Amino acid sequence: MGQTLMQRLAALGKLSDSPDGLTRLFLSPAHAQATAMVTEWMEDAGLSVHMDAVGNVVGRSGVPRPVLLLGSHIDTVRDAGMYDGNFGVAAAVEAMRRLRAAGETLPFGVEVIAFGDEEGVRFAHTLSGSKAVAGIFEAAALESVDANGMRMGDALAAFGGNPAGIAAMARQKQDVLGYVELHIEQGPVLEARNLGVGVVTAINGASRFSVTITGSAGHAGTVPMGMRLDALSAASEMVLAVETIGCSAPGLVATVGSLNVHPGAPNSVPGRVVFSVDVRAPEDFIRHEAAAKIRRAFEEIAARRKISMMMQQGHDAPATPCAPWLQTQLAAAVEAQGVSALYLPSGAGHDAMAMAALCPVGMLFVRCEGGISHTPEENISEADAELAVDVLIEFLRKFKAE
Amino acid sequence: MGQTLMQRLAALGKLSDSPDGLTRLFLSPAHAQATAMVTEWMEDAGLSVHMDAVGNVVGRSGVPRPVLLLGSHIDTVRDAGMYDGNFGVAAAVEAMRRLRAAGETLPFGVEVIAFGDEEGVRFAHTLSGSKAVAGIFEAAALESVDANGMRMGDALAAFGGNPAGIAAMARQKQDVLGYVELHIEQGPVLEARNLGVGVVTAINGASRFSVTITGSAGHAGTVPMGMRLDALSAASEMVLAVETIGCSAPGLVATVGSLNVHPGAPNSVPGRVVFSVDVRAPEDFIRHEAAAKIRRAFEEIAARRKISMMMQQGHDAPATPCAPWLQTQLAAAVEAQGVSALYLPSGAGHDAMAMAALCPVGMLFVRCEGGISHTPEENISEADAELAVDVLIEFLRKFKAE
Repeated sequence: MGQTLMQRLAALGKLSDSPDGLTRLFLSPAHAQATAMVTEWMEDAGLSVHMDAVGNVVGRSGVPRPVLLLGSHIDTVRDAGMYDGNFGVAAAVEAMRRLRAAGETLPFGVEVIAFGDEEGVRFAHTLSGSKAVAGIFEAAALESVDANGMRMGDALAAFGGNPAGIAAMARQKQDVLGYVELHIEQGPVLEARNLGVGVVTAINGASRFSVTITGSAGHAGTVPMGMRLDALSAASEMVLAVETIGCSAPGLVATVGSLNVHPGAPNSVPGRVVFSVDVRAPEDFIRHEAAAKIRRAFEEIAARRKISMMMQQGHDAPATPCAPWLQTQLAAAVEAQGVSALYLPSGAGHDAMAMAALCPVGMLFVRCEGGISHTPEENISEADAELAVDVLIEFLRKFKAE
Repeated sequence: MGQTLMQRLAALGKLSDSPDGLTRLFLSPAHAQATAMVTEWMEDAGLSVHMDAVGNVVGRSGVPRPVLLLGSHIDTVRDAGMYDGNFGVAAAVEAMRRLRAAGETLPFGVEVIAFGDEEGVRFAHTLSGSKAVAGIFEAAALESVDANGMRMGDALAAFGGNPAGIAAMARQKQDVLGYVELHIEQGPVLEARNLGVGVVTAINGASRFSVTITGSAGHAGTVPMGMRLDALSAASEMVLAVETIGCSAPGLVATVGSLNVHPGAPNSVPGRVVFSVDVRAPEDFIRHEAAAKIRRAFEEIAARRKISMMMQQGHDAPATPCAPWLQTQLAAAVEAQGVSALYLPSGAGHDAMAMAALCPVGMLFVRCEGGISHTPEENISEADAELAVDVLIEFLRKFKAE
């Protein structure tokens, strides 16, 4: 092939379902093209390749079991960057290619997997590829339909997958040593610390709430201050409470990201405000404690202002801790490159969340420019990409199953 | 006619441009019907009636000059209540009818005017009727067009008005003793004080600002709290500062009524927030001082949070003080009914604002249920309506020009 890692990522980044920018949805034409390209890379690296029942590309090397799984995803969000997911796949293939080129063999099998559905953009389900491998794929997901009314099951069959074979493709725990994923950080921490890579401690658990504040709407000119039940003033106190509580523990984040005011006219006292609260932390007890503190703060503010407050729990996902022994081995591989090992949580979700149902998981983050992702401006440096591959090679050379 | 005041208001409230609810726009078919109905009421009260060049209905009694002007407007907002504006016209006609029925003559002329364009819903100009009487009508308003492309000037001519005669219809200051308007309060103060009527001190001046806060958008999961420039947290502090400053002087009100968050997704740290600030006060120096305090507070918050803040002035209208001697005479007429006279500012605008360019103005407010207006639920009690008419009759009997 003769392409460098960065050239491969650029080539893969051109495979899009949209004429403008990069959009590559699960089981789409661009996904099929990406599957073919990744298959070529894997074959070039000496891996024996197949597509599994759920549409993942799997490249195998060495003994059939036990295996260490490496990988990430090759689907994208709409108008995406070219590194999210794709980098982890290309880097794992590149590490295997270089080990083979150096004539090195590993005393355990390795499989590199390019999952097809991490972003969950096309169907109302997500992580289909990794859930199927981990044995937690829900058959109901096959019935979900995309915006054109296409069933996931039908799209999968047309793609060359095998909906009926998904249950049987789940790996056995005793056959798998672990799952290690390289991914761009999607946050600003490594850049701020001037580090090319970092070791992930956990994928944060997340709690989402919808909060409705009901006061009393009125004319902004005629209702005296002392007679107002201003829903936005109450909500503003709550936004600040969320910020304060979010700062109260390391690794914890708490965000009010959407907030809508009704009636929302300059000459109306706001009568109702609806806003979101998103709480994430690497440890579930910290997140639950923060959510409880937020609820108590909201109740106090609402009572003091004689305003009604309703807080409904939405999405709730537990934290996925990375295996301490995989963190230790990844950190040692980082230090072996002369880079100090920073441990940091992942605020975003990853295939590793599903894989944790099967086996110990570990993740290595790569610095991304400005901490941004999910936009065409998403960027990583070639030096950081090479550093990450070097860390992975070192990790594989020294890998000891627990 | 044999109708009571409340029956007349109910009949007038049925004259709508829309099959559902009450919408009566300037120079519309419903406005023409209302003009005819008010003309009948005025004739029944012994007034000599004409429609002036700008479409106002004018009913005159007594000597041609000097005259005391009474009135309000008969146009409405969309989906309006039936008392806003209309009550002031019907009550003035009723007071004149009862004085005539009692055989009382006044030593000065009285004209009751039903203005046609206080709400400014149809065209991008407002207060056309009262501005024309006051001599401050801008000819350019005739060129403004409604949603169907109809020029105000053409609509006025078709209505039976005389666009070319507007300049000449302006009253001379020496011919006019004052202007007194009865109106529903549109606020909750009289209800809270358990009073049927109150004396207006001033129509509040108003300043409107648009504020843009620019921080830095980011992923709600991946950007640590300490690295955020959250535009909504900054804006929330500002909303609370507006509330605190709004409470710092009697009569002052300050409101953030609209607030929009960008990108506005639950999983995004807000990067930009745009909100309105509305400041009103019965005295201009209080309003200007409050606006300056708000700006200083915003600058302090933005600097502390290292966030950019832009505050642009929009609409700015000076306060219209009611003439102290008219306030005193209205208050005496209130007290004569055994009701204690409450002085209160008007937060909403009225025809009296335009009339103040011509002559001293006075206003009497009538309690409205829940303080609400501009909705079909707008309501006043018959007892309060009768009280207001009694106050106006007493005021007219005792009226002494300054």
